[in-house]
Amino acid sequence: MSQNDAFSAIDRQDCLRLLAKVPVGRVVYTRHALPAVLPINFSLDTDSSVLLRTSPDSDLVRAIDGVVVAFEADEFDAATRSGWSVVVTGRATVVTDPAEHDRLRETGPTSWMPQRETVFVRIASEMVTGRELRGTPGPL
Amino acid sequence: MSQNDAFSAIDRQDCLRLLAKVPVGRVVYTRHALPAVLPINFSLDTDSSVLLRTSPDSDLVRAIDGVVVAFEADEFDAATRSGWSVVVTGRATVVTDPAEHDRLRETGPTSWMPQRETVFVRIASEMVTGRELRGTPGPL
Repeated sequence: MSQNDAFSAIDRQDCLRLLAKVPVGRVVYTRHALPAVLPINFSLDTDSSVLLRTSPDSDLVRAIDGVVVAFEADEFDAATRSGWSVVVTGRATVVTDPAEHDRLRETGPTSWMPQRETVFVRIASEMVTGRELRGTPGPL
Repeated sequence: MSQNDAFSAIDRQDCLRLLAKVPVGRVVYTRHALPAVLPINFSLDTDSSVLLRTSPDSDLVRAIDGVVVAFEADEFDAATRSGWSVVVTGRATVVTDPAEHDRLRETGPTSWMPQRETVFVRIASEMVTGRELRGTPGPL
């Protein structure tokens, strides 16, 4: 399942359609010079950027504001050995415009974690790639 | 769901127990100086290292052999807004010892992708961290 050429590629529009189906993805970044990954709720904005909702004093915000990150979501089914994964790569920026912040409080992602204060982080969908695994028969 | 302090931490033994429940995780690394993430089948070895099975000529092997990577697995339930995630951070190395390779062909991970040739990659479980989200009531 790791050979890129054994997946079939998913085009950008289908990638975005699949992303919209799932409530949790994973932001991939660097923390203290080590690779880091954190599951997080998200939604897609009207321009197809990925929106995260978190706490303004979180380690995540400090680590990713202004930095190129990857954001991954997937769904796999062990019974059929099939599934898909999508990766969005782009610059993450904290939303600082008050009107934009207010708009996202209404229309942006919710979080499964209660937050005293909220900040939104936008990941530009500069590069969107996806792979589909159609399933292989039985155990090897 | 992104505030580290709002999760409860999972100890190393429980992290390894949870990892053993799922067939797919995500290897997190750097490719062409950008953050990269790839879903992949895995298993745990007897020493609790993470074992991947892939093709010897894959981009992944070239990118991670000898490098510190992160490996993440999780399970979330949208209905209860609960779940867990575990991250193993450590050096990835291709298994080159023929006896070890033969042992892993018998006891190591299988892959959902057919592979003409197989190489095993071991990620040392130098740092194992996990977080559990117990669920929050209804939509915010």
